[in-house]
Amino acid sequence: MTLIEATQLLEAFKRGRVSPQEVLRAFQAAPLAELPFARVDTHRSLRQGFPEVIYGAGKTPPQVAAIAGKILERETCLLVTRVTPEHVKAVRRRQRDAIYHETARCLTVERPALAKRPGKLAVLCAGTSDLPVAEEAAVTADIMGNTVERLFDVGVAGLHRLLNHMDLLQTANVLVVVAGMEGALPSVVAGLVSKPVIAVPTSVGYGASFGGIAALLGMLNSCGSGVTVVNIDNGFGAGYAASQINALAAP
Amino acid sequence: MTLIEATQLLEAFKRGRVSPQEVLRAFQAAPLAELPFARVDTHRSLRQGFPEVIYGAGKTPPQVAAIAGKILERETCLLVTRVTPEHVKAVRRRQRDAIYHETARCLTVERPALAKRPGKLAVLCAGTSDLPVAEEAAVTADIMGNTVERLFDVGVAGLHRLLNHMDLLQTANVLVVVAGMEGALPSVVAGLVSKPVIAVPTSVGYGASFGGIAALLGMLNSCGSGVTVVNIDNGFGAGYAASQINALAAP
Amino acid sequence: MTLIEATQLLEAFKRGRVSPQEVLRAFQAAPLAELPFARVDTHRSLRQGFPEVIYGAGKTPPQVAAIAGKILERETCLLVTRVTPEHVKAVRRRQRDAIYHETARCLTVERPALAKRPGKLAVLCAGTSDLPVAEEAAVTADIMGNTVERLFDVGVAGLHRLLNHMDLLQTANVLVVVAGMEGALPSVVAGLVSKPVIAVPTSVGYGASFGGIAALLGMLNSCGSGVTVVNIDNGFGAGYAASQINALAAP
Amino acid sequence: MTLIEATQLLEAFKRGRVSPQEVLRAFQAAPLAELPFARVDTHRSLRQGFPEVIYGAGKTPPQVAAIAGKILERETCLLVTRVTPEHVKAVRRRQRDAIYHETARCLTVERPALAKRPGKLAVLCAGTSDLPVAEEAAVTADIMGNTVERLFDVGVAGLHRLLNHMDLLQTANVLVVVAGMEGALPSVVAGLVSKPVIAVPTSVGYGASFGGIAALLGMLNSCGSGVTVVNIDNGFGAGYAASQINALAAP
Amino acid sequence: MTLIEATQLLEAFKRGRVSPQEVLRAFQAAPLAELPFARVDTHRSLRQGFPEVIYGAGKTPPQVAAIAGKILERETCLLVTRVTPEHVKAVRRRQRDAIYHETARCLTVERPALAKRPGKLAVLCAGTSDLPVAEEAAVTADIMGNTVERLFDVGVAGLHRLLNHMDLLQTANVLVVVAGMEGALPSVVAGLVSKPVIAVPTSVGYGASFGGIAALLGMLNSCGSGVTVVNIDNGFGAGYAASQINALAAP
Amino acid sequence: MTLIEATQLLEAFKRGRVSPQEVLRAFQAAPLAELPFARVDTHRSLRQGFPEVIYGAGKTPPQVAAIAGKILERETCLLVTRVTPEHVKAVRRRQRDAIYHETARCLTVERPALAKRPGKLAVLCAGTSDLPVAEEAAVTADIMGNTVERLFDVGVAGLHRLLNHMDLLQTANVLVVVAGMEGALPSVVAGLVSKPVIAVPTSVGYGASFGGIAALLGMLNSCGSGVTVVNIDNGFGAGYAASQINALAAP
Amino acid sequence: MTLIEATQLLEAFKRGRVSPQEVLRAFQAAPLAELPFARVDTHRSLRQGFPEVIYGAGKTPPQVAAIAGKILERETCLLVTRVTPEHVKAVRRRQRDAIYHETARCLTVERPALAKRPGKLAVLCAGTSDLPVAEEAAVTADIMGNTVERLFDVGVAGLHRLLNHMDLLQTANVLVVVAGMEGALPSVVAGLVSKPVIAVPTSVGYGASFGGIAALLGMLNSCGSGVTVVNIDNGFGAGYAASQINALAAP
Amino acid sequence: MTLIEATQLLEAFKRGRVSPQEVLRAFQAAPLAELPFARVDTHRSLRQGFPEVIYGAGKTPPQVAAIAGKILERETCLLVTRVTPEHVKAVRRRQRDAIYHETARCLTVERPALAKRPGKLAVLCAGTSDLPVAEEAAVTADIMGNTVERLFDVGVAGLHRLLNHMDLLQTANVLVVVAGMEGALPSVVAGLVSKPVIAVPTSVGYGASFGGIAALLGMLNSCGSGVTVVNIDNGFGAGYAASQINALAAP
Repeated sequence: MTLIEATQLLEAFKRGRVSPQEVLRAFQAAPLAELPFARVDTHRSLRQGFPEVIYGAGKTPPQVAAIAGKILERETCLLVTRVTPEHVKAVRRRQRDAIYHETARCLTVERPALAKRPGKLAVLCAGTSDLPVAEEAAVTADIMGNTVERLFDVGVAGLHRLLNHMDLLQTANVLVVVAGMEGALPSVVAGLVSKPVIAVPTSVGYGASFGGIAALLGMLNSCGSGVTVVNIDNGFGAGYAASQINALAAP
Repeated sequence: MTLIEATQLLEAFKRGRVSPQEVLRAFQAAPLAELPFARVDTHRSLRQGFPEVIYGAGKTPPQVAAIAGKILERETCLLVTRVTPEHVKAVRRRQRDAIYHETARCLTVERPALAKRPGKLAVLCAGTSDLPVAEEAAVTADIMGNTVERLFDVGVAGLHRLLNHMDLLQTANVLVVVAGMEGALPSVVAGLVSKPVIAVPTSVGYGASFGGIAALLGMLNSCGSGVTVVNIDNGFGAGYAASQINALAAP
Repeated sequence: MTLIEATQLLEAFKRGRVSPQEVLRAFQAAPLAELPFARVDTHRSLRQGFPEVIYGAGKTPPQVAAIAGKILERETCLLVTRVTPEHVKAVRRRQRDAIYHETARCLTVERPALAKRPGKLAVLCAGTSDLPVAEEAAVTADIMGNTVERLFDVGVAGLHRLLNHMDLLQTANVLVVVAGMEGALPSVVAGLVSKPVIAVPTSVGYGASFGGIAALLGMLNSCGSGVTVVNIDNGFGAGYAASQINALAAP
Repeated sequence: MTLIEATQLLEAFKRGRVSPQEVLRAFQAAPLAELPFARVDTHRSLRQGFPEVIYGAGKTPPQVAAIAGKILERETCLLVTRVTPEHVKAVRRRQRDAIYHETARCLTVERPALAKRPGKLAVLCAGTSDLPVAEEAAVTADIMGNTVERLFDVGVAGLHRLLNHMDLLQTANVLVVVAGMEGALPSVVAGLVSKPVIAVPTSVGYGASFGGIAALLGMLNSCGSGVTVVNIDNGFGAGYAASQINALAAP
Repeated sequence: MTLIEATQLLEAFKRGRVSPQEVLRAFQAAPLAELPFARVDTHRSLRQGFPEVIYGAGKTPPQVAAIAGKILERETCLLVTRVTPEHVKAVRRRQRDAIYHETARCLTVERPALAKRPGKLAVLCAGTSDLPVAEEAAVTADIMGNTVERLFDVGVAGLHRLLNHMDLLQTANVLVVVAGMEGALPSVVAGLVSKPVIAVPTSVGYGASFGGIAALLGMLNSCGSGVTVVNIDNGFGAGYAASQINALAAP
Repeated sequence: MTLIEATQLLEAFKRGRVSPQEVLRAFQAAPLAELPFARVDTHRSLRQGFPEVIYGAGKTPPQVAAIAGKILERETCLLVTRVTPEHVKAVRRRQRDAIYHETARCLTVERPALAKRPGKLAVLCAGTSDLPVAEEAAVTADIMGNTVERLFDVGVAGLHRLLNHMDLLQTANVLVVVAGMEGALPSVVAGLVSKPVIAVPTSVGYGASFGGIAALLGMLNSCGSGVTVVNIDNGFGAGYAASQINALAAP
Repeated sequence: MTLIEATQLLEAFKRGRVSPQEVLRAFQAAPLAELPFARVDTHRSLRQGFPEVIYGAGKTPPQVAAIAGKILERETCLLVTRVTPEHVKAVRRRQRDAIYHETARCLTVERPALAKRPGKLAVLCAGTSDLPVAEEAAVTADIMGNTVERLFDVGVAGLHRLLNHMDLLQTANVLVVVAGMEGALPSVVAGLVSKPVIAVPTSVGYGASFGGIAALLGMLNSCGSGVTVVNIDNGFGAGYAASQINALAAP
Repeated sequence: MTLIEATQLLEAFKRGRVSPQEVLRAFQAAPLAELPFARVDTHRSLRQGFPEVIYGAGKTPPQVAAIAGKILERETCLLVTRVTPEHVKAVRRRQRDAIYHETARCLTVERPALAKRPGKLAVLCAGTSDLPVAEEAAVTADIMGNTVERLFDVGVAGLHRLLNHMDLLQTANVLVVVAGMEGALPSVVAGLVSKPVIAVPTSVGYGASFGGIAALLGMLNSCGSGVTVVNIDNGFGAGYAASQINALAAP
C-alpha cells in the first residue's frame, strides 16, 4: 500500500464507501514495508551519506559489475569489499572513476567525494601481514566520511614503536586496532587511551592461531576496559562501527 | 624520580655539578611511571568522573571492604561488580551509603551523585534470565554518568514486543543488547537503528549453548552492520564501552 | 492503540477533526503489538489448545508459583518444565490439582483435560538414563493434545528389543527418538519408518560424550533421511515440534 | 529363503520329511531380508511416489550416469544432488529429459511429472549466498510431490522484507528456513507462525562462522518453539523431512 | 512366540488346521526377540561365562540392589561398575558374598568362582592417579575368566620402571594400557610387544588435559601399530574387549 | 657393539686383558640397539611373516621406489599405503610383480604369497564412500596372512542388508567395522556378535561431520561392549590390530 | 641383577662354568633398572640439590603425610604442591619444620636450607588473581636453589607499572611470566629483554577465557621471540624449567 | 629527539634560553624510541651476534629480496624462514653467498661465519616427516652461534633408536625435541636428562591429529618435568629460545 493508496482509502472511508472495519483490516493486512514505514528501512540512513556496500567474495565479476551499476543509478557513492582484480576490471568497464584499493581489496566510487568529519578516527595494526584487514577498515571509514589516520606495524613485541605515537592515540575519537597471532595490541592500546577501542582479530598466524581464534579469544578477554570486538578479518565491520561512533562526536 | 627530583637534577646540571651525560642517563633510566608521565596512567581519566571499579568475584568480603575503603579515601564514587550479599554486608559496615543493586550483583557509592549526560544510552535484553548481565551494564553506565533506558524481555521469538518500542531504539545514542541462547537480538536491533550496537552474549541456555558460545558466535557473525561484541556475561565491559561512546556525543 | 481507540480515530477523521496525514502517522507510529495485530502474536495459537509453558530452571519456587497463578487466571492448562520438588510444593499450595511428573521433571494443570488427537505420536529412548528427557517430550506432547505411546530402553546394541515393536514404529505419525552416548538410535529408526523422526541428543554418557556433543553430532550426521534434531536434552522442544507435526495430520 | 522356498519347506514338513526342529531352525537362520520382510525395507516407501536419490559429490560422472541409468530402468523419477556440470553432461547423454537445476546443484527426472499435494511448503533463506542450499531443499521437496513456495533474501537485518510476506508464512504447512552467519532467521520465523519450522544452517560466512558452526549452534539454541535442525548445508535433508511432514497434512 | 507356541503352530499346520500362509505370516509377524532367536541376543554369550553388568553411576542404591537381586536369580556371576560405598551396602544386605573392589569402584559376585583361562592378560597404568580406571579394567577382565597381571606406575618419564618388566610385557596375550595426561604409554608399550594393545585414556590431569582429551588424542595418533582405543576412563570397556581377545587364544 | 664384538670382549676378559669393571661398563654403556637386543626391536616380529610397511603420503615417487627397493633386498613382502598412481609407476619400474590395489590406495609385493591363517577376519563398511578405508584395512590384513571377508554398504539406515549376513558376522574371529557420518554401524554390529570389533571412523560426510569427528565420537561412545577405535581413516591400523588379534586364535 | 651378581657371573664365566652365550643372554635379559644403570634414573639428579616433589591434588592428607615421611627418611628437602590446609596439618604432625606457603598452596621442608645460586630468576604476574600460580612457580624455584625476585600485578593494561621495573627485567637470567585472561604479558616482556621467557597461562577469567585456553593460545602465538609455554596453571612446571635454565648460568 | 638534540636542549637550558619546565616537558613528550633508549629496543641484542630474521611466508620473492638487501646493508648475518625456491632465487640475485637450507626451508647469510659457543645444543625429532621443522630449529640455532647436534627419527615406538644415543642426550645443555602425531618424545627425553627440553609439536599426522593439536596437547600435559612448549611447527621459535638458554651456559 503506497502513501497514495492509503490516502485514497481514507478518502473513500470519509465518503462512506468503505466501513471503518475495512480500513482497520487494510492497515493491519498491509505488508509493513509497503506502508511508508521508514523506521525499519536500514537503507535510508545509508543513503544519507553512507555508501551502499557489496560483499564481493563469492560473486562473479559480471554479478558485481551489474549490482554496482544498478546502485550507481540512484546513489552517489559505492563500496565493494573483498574484490579481486577481475572484479575491478569488470566494474571499471562501466564505472571509469572507480578506485581500486589493492591492499584493502576494496573498490570505491564517490561522485563527488564527500567532505570529511572533523574528528580523527585511528586505524592501528600489529604487523605487516595485518595490512589488508586494517586497510579494509580504513577505506570503509574513509568513504563513510571520516578523517582516518593509519598507524601500522606497532606490535606489542616492540613497544617503543607504539609509544612513539602517543599523540595520535590520545587525540583520536575512536580507534580500530587490528592484530593477528596473540591479538594483544588492543589491550595495550586501551590502557593508553580513554576512547572506544574496536578490536579486529585477523587470521594471520599458523598452528595454534587456528585461523584467528587465538587473537579473537585474546581480544574478548582483554583486560583493557572499553574494548569491543568484531569477527575475524572483519575490517569492514570495524570501520563501519567506528564511523557510527565517530559520527556521534560530530553529527 | 619525582618532579622535584627532576628539577633538582636540572638545577645541579646548570650549576655544573653533573655532566649532560649524567642528566641524559638519569632520564633514560628513570622508571617511566615515576616520571610525571600521565599519558600511560589509565587512572587519571577514571578520576575525571569515572568510578573506580573492583571485580568482586574471587575476593573475600574483607578484601573487598578494604579496597573499597582505600579507594573512597581519595575518590567520590565507586563500583564493585560481581558481589555477593556477604560482600555487601562487609562494605556497608564502613560505607553506610553504599547501594546494593541485587539483580546486577553490583554495589555503588556516589558522593554526591553526578549529573547525567543528556543523550540516552539504551540497554536491551532478550529474556528474563539475561537480567543480571543487562543490569550490570545498566548500573555501570549509570554510575559513569549516562541516562540509561532499559528495555527487557524483548527476544526475537516475539518481535512485536521489540517493535513496540521503536521510539526508544531510534533515539538512543548507543545500544547495549544482551542475549543468551542463539543471541539473535543484536542483529535484529542493528537492522532497526543507525547507531552503535554493543552485543553481550550471556551464558543463559543449556546443551549446545555451551555456556554462551552459541550466543557469542551468533553475535560475532551478525549480519547487522555496526555490531561489536564483548565477552560472555561481560555486562560491565559493555556498559563501560557504551559510556565511552555516549561521552563522544556529549563531551 | 486499542481497537476502540483506532475506531475513534477514524471517526474523528470522518468528522474532519483530524487530517488524513494525522491518521496515517498514527497508524505508522502505533506500537505494532498495540494494534489488534494478531499475526505477530505467538500467544494466540498457544491459547488455542496449547498450554502456557514456564521453564522452571533458574527460577525460585515462589517465582514459579506466582507466574503459574497468573497464567491460570486466564488459561485452562499449564506446563512447567525442569521443576524440582520445591517448585512443585510451592505451586500446589494454590493449584491443588497440579500433577507432578517426577521422571519428566514436569508439572501440569489441565482444567478439564482436553480430548486427544486421533493419530499416534511415539516417543522412544535408547537407555534408562535417557528417561527424564524422553518423559519431558512425552508429557509435553500429551498436554498439547496428542496420543503418546512410549517405547523405552530400545538401544541399538540390542536390536531385537527395537524390532519387536515394528507395529508401533510404523503406525505413528511422528516419532521422537531420544538417545545419549553415540546417539545412533534415530538413524536406525528412520530406516524402518517413512514418517518424520525428531532426534533428541541427551547429555547421558561420560568422557568423549562431552555432555551430549557426541550424540548431537551423530544425529546431525544421520544417514537416515528425514531426521531433524533439537538441542541436547531438549525434550520439551521435541515434544512441541512433534505435536505441531501431528496436528497437521488431524487438524 | 524366498516365499516359494518357505512354502516348500512347510510342505515337506507336512509330509513328514523334515522335523519341526528343522523348520524352526530354518526360520531362525534365514537372513531376515530374504524373508518377505517388507518392514525393514526403506525402499518400498520411496517407490510409492518418492524419488530415488543419488548423492553426486565424490562420484565420477560415469559412475553417476551408470547408477542413474540403472535406477531409471525400474523407477519413474530420480533426484541427483551435489552435481557438477560434468555429472549433468554424463547423465544427459542417456537421459535426455533430465533437468539440471543449476543453483540447486541438482538434476531431476520425472516420467511423467507427478501431481502436487495441495498444501504449501515454504522455503525461506536469509541471504543470496544461501541460495544453493535453499534451492536444494526446494527442488527436493518439489520432486517429492509438494507445492513449494520460495521466499529468498529475507534476513533479519532488514525485518520489513520478511514481514512483507506474512501471508505466505502463515499459510504454509511447514517451513524450511535456511541461513548462514548467525542463523537467526528460524527463531524470528518460528515466532511468527504456529507450524513446524525446519532450520538449515549454511556454511556461508567467514572467520568465527567456522564453516557453519555459528549458524548451527544458533539454530539448536533457538528461543522459538518448534524449531528442528538438520546438518550444515543439508538442503536435501530439510526438503525430505519437510515433505514427510507435509504429507501428513494431505495423505 | 515361545518355542512351545511355535511347535504347536507347526503341529496345527500339519493337522491342516492352519494354512501355510498363516504359518508364514505368524513367523514374519512374531516379534524377533520372542522367537527363540539367539543370534540377536547379546545376553546369551554373556551367560556363557561372562558376567551380567550393571553400570552403577546415576542409579540409586535400592535400584542397584534390586537389579542385582533379579540378575542373581538366574545368573551365577555379576559385575557392578562405578559403585559408591552406599551402593555396596545396599547390595550386600541381600548378597552377603558380594566383593567390593574399592579402588576399582566395582562390586562382584561369583558363585562359584570360575576357573581362569591359561593365557595372561596384562593391565598397565602410567601413574597412581590412573589406578581406579586400571583396576576397573582388571576386575572386569578377572571376572570374565582371565588371568590378569597388573603393572602399575610405569609412566614414560621413568622408562626404567617399564623396561624392568619386559618379560611380563612380552608374554601377555593382550595388554590394556591406561594413562592420563599426555597418554604416551601405549605408544611406547606397542613398540616393545607384538600383541594387541588396548589404550585407555583417563581424565587425570589439569588445564590443557581437558578432562582426558589430550590423552585420548595422543592414543588415537599413536605411532605404535596395533593400538586401539576406548573412551576416556572406560576401564570396563577395555577389560571387556581384552577378554574377548584373550578368549580367542584359549577358546 | 655387535654380537661378535661382545663375544670378543668376553674372550678378552677371560684372558685377563680387560677387568670385570671394564666389561660391566661396556655393557652398561653399549647402545641398547647395538646389543643383539631383540626385545626392543619391533622389526623382528614384522619379519616373521608380517610385511614391511611404507606410508606413501608426503613421499615422492622416487623416494617410495627407493625405500621399497631397499626393503625387498632383505624381505619377501611389502606394503605401501596411501599411494598415488605415480607412486605405483615408480615402484613397478623395478618391482614388476607389485600389485596395485586402486580403491585401497595400496601397493603390495609378496614373494611368494603366504598361506593364510584358518580363521576369518571380517571387514565391513557402512557406505560406498567408506570403501577406500575399508579396502586399506582388508589389504593390510590380507598381506599379514589373514583370510579376509568383505561386507560392504551395510549402513544402519537399511538394517536388512546387514541382518542378511548374520552368518558371516557370527563366524568371524574379529571384525573391522568402517563408517563415516554418524558412525553407528560398530554399535549395531557389536550387539550382534561376541567377538572383538575394531571401529574405524572415516572422514566421509560434510558439515557437522567435521572431517570424521562425529563418527569418531560416536564410536568412542558406543553402547556396544567390546568396541575399540582407531584414528579417523586409519584403515591400516585397524587391519594391523585385527591381524594381531586373529593371530592369537591361530598362532 | 645387582652389581655383585653381575661380577659373580663374569667370575663364573672366567672359570668356564658358564658359556659366553649364557653371559650375553643374562645381560640382555637383565631388567635395565636392575643394572647399575643410572642414566635412566631421573631421581639421581633430583637428589643432587633438587627436592622430591609430591602432587597433593587428589591425595588424602594421610597419603600425603605418609609419602612425605618416607621421602624425608632419605632426602633433606621436599616440595608438596596443590595442598589444602588439611594436607598441611597431616604432614606437620610428624614434620614440625614444614613451611606452609598459603598463597602458593605449597608445603616445603629444607634441612638445612640450601645456599642460593647467584643469578636472579624473576617471576612476574599480570593480576592479583594470578598470584597462586605465580607463587607456586616462585616457591618451586626457591627450593630448587634459585634467588627469586617477584614482580606482581603488572598487567599490560597499565604499562607504566611494568616499565617501572626495567632493571629487574633486564638483570634476570630467566623470567617466568604468569597471566590469565588474554595472556598478553609474556609477549610484552619478551620484547623488553633478551633472556628466556617461560609463559604460564592461568585459568583466571570467565566466559570466552574457557578456563585458560584464551591465555594459552595467546602465549603459544606470542609475537615475542624466545617465549616457551607450559600447561594452564602449571606454576610448578614453569618454576622447575626456569630453575634448570638458571642452573646453566651458574653450574 | 636524537642524542645530539637532547644535548643541545640541555646546553640551551644551561645558557638560560629554555626553562626547566620546558626541558622536563620535552623529555616527557619525546617519543620513547627517539630517545637513545636502548632498553625497549629488541634489535640491539639481535645485532650483538643474533641474525635479523625475515618470515618469508606470505611475502613475494621481490619483497623478501628487498628486505634482505636492506638488512644486509647494516648487518652481517641474516635468516629468512619459510622460503620457497622462488624466494631463494630472488635473494641470490643480489646476495650470491646466501645459503639455501632446502629441508629447513631457510636461507642464511653470514659475513663472516661466527665462531660457535662451546656447549652443545641438541635437536631431536621423532619421524622423517618432522624433518623440516627440526631443521628450521637447527638452522636457527646454528646461525645464532650454537654448536648444534642433530638426532633424527628416534620416535618412541622404537625406543632402542633413542636409547642408543644417551651420550648425546646427557651432554647437551638444552634439547629441542620435535614430534608430530601423539607428541610423546619430549616426555621420554625429559625423563632421561636433567637439562631444559623445548618441545615442538608438528602438524604431521592425519585425522584426529587435527593439524598438530594432538601433539601440542600431549606436550603441554607432559609428565616430564622441565618441558616447555612452542607453537605447532614453530621450529624457529624453539631454536631461538634454545639459543637464549644455551647462551646462559657460555655467555
